[in-house]
Amino acid sequence: MNEQSLHPVNLLHKASSIDTQWSPRIVAEMNDYQFKVVRIEGEFIWHSHPETDEAFLVLEGELRIDLPHGQVFVRPGELYVVPRGIEHRTAAASEAKLMMIEPRGILNTGHEGGERTAQNDLWI
Amino acid sequence: MNEQSLHPVNLLHKASSIDTQWSPRIVAEMNDYQFKVVRIEGEFIWHSHPETDEAFLVLEGELRIDLPHGQVFVRPGELYVVPRGIEHRTAAASEAKLMMIEPRGILNTGHEGGERTAQNDLWI
Repeated sequence: MNEQSLHPVNLLHKASSIDTQWSPRIVAEMNDYQFKVVRIEGEFIWHSHPETDEAFLVLEGELRIDLPHGQVFVRPGELYVVPRGIEHRTAAASEAKLMMIEPRGILNTGHEGGERTAQNDLWI
Repeated sequence: MNEQSLHPVNLLHKASSIDTQWSPRIVAEMNDYQFKVVRIEGEFIWHSHPETDEAFLVLEGELRIDLPHGQVFVRPGELYVVPRGIEHRTAAASEAKLMMIEPRGILNTGHEGGERTAQNDLWI
């Protein structure tokens, strides 16, 4: 976001304008943290971020977060923070649109890597 | 938030349960950052946070942010980040409910202080 802008970011509009699922796009920054929106459907891979917590805010649809000790269901207007180092897998039975907050430079697959790793510096 | 919880935080429900306007309450933490909800109405005081950006997400109603170079109107589902060091004043013509994100320990009045300064370590 242009920090001199007088226009807020409409998160759902931004998420809806991404052309591909599982492709996070940055919409704003706060210090060394980034706000990213993403469209997801189906299951991601299990991974963790040893260096940081990761926050999820649901904009539309229902997010399922699989954790070692159970599942969390997150609906629009709800927030969940996955603690650092905790293995997790995001999923959505039908398309969900989310905002994620995490430090700049974090990869979506954490230290797991692989073909599901998305470019992590694209804005929308 | 208890990090072992399997329950997300419903931001609007939390904000609605605060008994007093202009009294931010912490609902979750991410690393050394805090998610706070607040109910506001009327005008706050001009202040700045020289050490940090500050993010606002509107949950209900309309937030007005007065800035040296103009006004921003933020509606539900919209995000705005006030850059560090920029004087700003939040306001709402009728009650608005917000989420704010900022580092732990930040005062609502920044370095301005005074009678509008709220306790900054209360959870809800």
